[in-house]
Amino acid sequence: MSSIEENKNTVAEQVEKVAEKLEDVILGEDGKPLSKKALKKLEKEREKERKKQERLAKEAAQREAELANDFAKDNYGDLSVDGTGKTIKSVGFGDSEWKRVKDLNESLDGQNVHIQVRVQTSRATGSSMCFLVLRGGTSTVQGLVVADDKNISKIMVKFIKSIPSESIVAIEGKVVKPSEPVQSCSVHDAEIHIQKIYVISRAGPIAFSLEDATRSNKEIEEGGFSKVNLDTRLDNRIIDLRTVTNNAIFRIQSAVCQLFREFLLEKKFTEIHSPKLNGSASEGGANVFEVTYFKRKAYLAQSPQLYKQMCIAADFGRVFEIGPVFRAEDSNTHRHMTEFVGLDLEMSFSEDYHEVMNLIYDCFIYIFKSLETRWAHELEVIRQQYPSEPIRFKEERVVLKFPEAIALLRESGVEIPDLEDLSTENEKLLGSLVAKKYGVDFYILDKFPSGIRPFYTMPDPADPKYSNSYDFFIRNEEIMSGAQRIHDADYLTSCIKEKGINPAELESYIDAFRYGCPPHAGGGVGLERVVMLYLGLGNIRRTSLFPRDPKRLSP
Amino acid sequence: MSSIEENKNTVAEQVEKVAEKLEDVILGEDGKPLSKKALKKLEKEREKERKKQERLAKEAAQREAELANDFAKDNYGDLSVDGTGKTIKSVGFGDSEWKRVKDLNESLDGQNVHIQVRVQTSRATGSSMCFLVLRGGTSTVQGLVVADDKNISKIMVKFIKSIPSESIVAIEGKVVKPSEPVQSCSVHDAEIHIQKIYVISRAGPIAFSLEDATRSNKEIEEGGFSKVNLDTRLDNRIIDLRTVTNNAIFRIQSAVCQLFREFLLEKKFTEIHSPKLNGSASEGGANVFEVTYFKRKAYLAQSPQLYKQMCIAADFGRVFEIGPVFRAEDSNTHRHMTEFVGLDLEMSFSEDYHEVMNLIYDCFIYIFKSLETRWAHELEVIRQQYPSEPIRFKEERVVLKFPEAIALLRESGVEIPDLEDLSTENEKLLGSLVAKKYGVDFYILDKFPSGIRPFYTMPDPADPKYSNSYDFFIRNEEIMSGAQRIHDADYLTSCIKEKGINPAELESYIDAFRYGCPPHAGGGVGLERVVMLYLGLGNIRRTSLFPRDPKRLSP
Repeated sequence: MSSIEENKNTVAEQVEKVAEKLEDVILGEDGKPLSKKALKKLEKEREKERKKQERLAKEAAQREAELANDFAKDNYGDLSVDGTGKTIKSVGFGDSEWKRVKDLNESLDGQNVHIQVRVQTSRATGSSMCFLVLRGGTSTVQGLVVADDKNISKIMVKFIKSIPSESIVAIEGKVVKPSEPVQSCSVHDAEIHIQKIYVISRAGPIAFSLEDATRSNKEIEEGGFSKVNLDTRLDNRIIDLRTVTNNAIFRIQSAVCQLFREFLLEKKFTEIHSPKLNGSASEGGANVFEVTYFKRKAYLAQSPQLYKQMCIAADFGRVFEIGPVFRAEDSNTHRHMTEFVGLDLEMSFSEDYHEVMNLIYDCFIYIFKSLETRWAHELEVIRQQYPSEPIRFKEERVVLKFPEAIALLRESGVEIPDLEDLSTENEKLLGSLVAKKYGVDFYILDKFPSGIRPFYTMPDPADPKYSNSYDFFIRNEEIMSGAQRIHDADYLTSCIKEKGINPAELESYIDAFRYGCPPHAGGGVGLERVVMLYLGLGNIRRTSLFPRDPKRLSP
Repeated sequence: MSSIEENKNTVAEQVEKVAEKLEDVILGEDGKPLSKKALKKLEKEREKERKKQERLAKEAAQREAELANDFAKDNYGDLSVDGTGKTIKSVGFGDSEWKRVKDLNESLDGQNVHIQVRVQTSRATGSSMCFLVLRGGTSTVQGLVVADDKNISKIMVKFIKSIPSESIVAIEGKVVKPSEPVQSCSVHDAEIHIQKIYVISRAGPIAFSLEDATRSNKEIEEGGFSKVNLDTRLDNRIIDLRTVTNNAIFRIQSAVCQLFREFLLEKKFTEIHSPKLNGSASEGGANVFEVTYFKRKAYLAQSPQLYKQMCIAADFGRVFEIGPVFRAEDSNTHRHMTEFVGLDLEMSFSEDYHEVMNLIYDCFIYIFKSLETRWAHELEVIRQQYPSEPIRFKEERVVLKFPEAIALLRESGVEIPDLEDLSTENEKLLGSLVAKKYGVDFYILDKFPSGIRPFYTMPDPADPKYSNSYDFFIRNEEIMSGAQRIHDADYLTSCIKEKGINPAELESYIDAFRYGCPPHAGGGVGLERVVMLYLGLGNIRRTSLFPRDPKRLSP
């Protein structure tokens, strides 16, 4: 459909809308006939509307005539996607290669290229010239159009400057090396002189500008700009995700998964996919979402815990899974979501669970190092909006036993019992004490008290008050929790009873260990949490594409 | 706990059980007092039971005395895991390296090694000798123990031959090169002469033997063996998954994911994780599981369709996801499950959706080629139990347009309309015609009729009766369905109406395209289906770790 036909349609639609409105008025909202006075008023409105429509139709006809005579008319317009008119395929740019914005540079000076980009902003200079910022991915280039008397008419310039921000356009143009570097775009040494431009997808009104959404707190404070708050961002997540910062955050998220797998596949792990729909709430029943499953109930998995252990019992040896986990917890904090991505691993060992703990440490080091080298560009982009320092770590593992941590805290004046869990406050303090003593932001706390760990945690045989379990910390916050698991059904049963849970509720879990199971240990990380803490983003929703919490289920 | 203490406990438990039983009898099932006759019978039973317990206790005491005097008593036994007795750590094998079974060979002749293995079978020869098949992962080695008068007693040999199949043991032994190759194990050129053996995890009764579960149909028919049927396997999945075949199947499943990602990451795709819990049933509402979400309802995602398209609208360019998808379809066939793993991808393109279709074809070729080379061993193992031929394919893409397929079918005598979907029968026939004509088991069918594709499919602009959509086939069955999607909100609305769906139900889906969206296409594969068809396994449950269907939610 050409833009002329579209205008016609717009007029027709408006007439229809007015007619509907009038009909409403005649009937009245109460369904009763209107008074004479009301009818007179109505007739006046109708007359007014009729005149308006006449005017619009006249203007449209004028535009149509103007366009029909426009010598540049084939060089611009809206592309239809309804199968009746022009399509992208039939733009007729020929077989030449499409370029990406980030590939444009002065070496292409003088060449004709095709690009498919968003119009980020446009700025007209008089009626015959318009500058555009064109965005492809996270790169931007300056576009320029100048009216002449052969190919580019003033009507074409007017059309271009009226293209809404964030619309997708296909452009044919010449690459020109500008006399001075273009500071306002990421491509400094090239601009595009537009010869043809077609709107592929016209954007409607946008809730906030990408410029506003990409400023750091410092820029906002210093420049007095308005802040786009998190809820507005999440309500308009498609727009929000277009910022260079968010694009980079989700490349980092993708990278963490890639690196986690690279490391574990190299170590002969097998990737598994455990069921998310289960017939019973196998880990005890609290905080589980209930699903209507045909004529019965099912429950969403809170973690792959049982299933990864079953794979160990089934001789898989070493397994990992990356997949969603669900928590029906009514928590509305900066670090809780009802659905997140779990990075889980489990492995059998020969002699000691530290074989597993050490492997997990090395896995994290691999991830940290690779991010800072292979994803340096993305980190730089993110740190412009959200400043943060790289994690400090040592190749030689920094491991504190729980009693050592307690001693360290007591040394600094904290009164604290031997066998209780650390408060958030003390976790923070411990982190800073460790940072001071060892110069690291990443460390392991080993040998947690048995009383504060889940029922399936193996106690330390040398001192059952403590257990073969560990937490990993980044910048004072826990990012990974793990342990050796009890692999003996009878002993597991007695531990379950000790915690005051009815073993009958966990029967399928316990039964898994009745056919011989090697000693094993493992752990689980929340993907969004790792990314949040690594980048210092302060709210877990920033690292989830479409976050879910008790109040948010869309978009 | 030593095995003597365990025996004591067993006796105590039995006494307790009998006491409970007697109490039941005294009360009677109807709660009324028993008759004199019944009481007399009861007393007799009690006397009999008392004598039995006396006998058992005496035997246990004898055994205890015997064991106490056994010169070999420190060289075997059950290892406790309850933190009160010996543990794996305290076996005291020292710091020497643990070996894996598959690493044992004649080069280690004469060396002492430690292994942690399952006892697959044991066979005693008289009272002083016992042969064992020891399994580690998918490899087996022969173990041998012979009584002497220094380290290995007859009591120790008796203990060893009574270890239940599938129990996990830790062994210290000497590697010996056998005079003749051991045919019954995968390690032919080495056996283990056992010096110490400790049971780490004692297996209870097993539903079927691994030998029975690993036979091919041919072996079963020729040898007259009993078949382990699929339901029995799935009910006892932990045992079933231990077969070398199943172990290899899930290594292939892991490999398919790994290769899918390798290919796409190389092509600059970003891995995403879309939400599985959604506030509305965004794809139309049929076959969706309902979740109780605090005080409202949520719905499980049927596919990442909407969300991967939203990522395209958010300028991610190229995305993929590997994750669970849920279908509340009450189908009980060989190829339907209520939960499976989706391999999904979506990408924007510059000029033509074939850019995407071709990339998907190349991705499959990469997977097929890599499986046959890098996972040749696993394929060989699987094909011993489930014979199949490698997929035949060509680097040069084999693509049939839908009308060409219809013509091909008509040539071979089938009466078939132009624009209807192919029946399963005709799909099969078409597959064999294509195999005959092009010599391939893998091909693309392009340009499906618009009428038989989902509402979001882009029609072919040249002929809207057909659409820009494609299916991929392996061995006559569809494995991947994909298409160019409609990226214009208004046109999408009109297509939704045309299919008789109320656009209001799909509002959040439609709205995603109101902010400018590039043209894009993609597709989705079921992981289990690809693996099933590639390996010719005949039932999708064989390629799901813990399959879910309308009747199965556990284990």
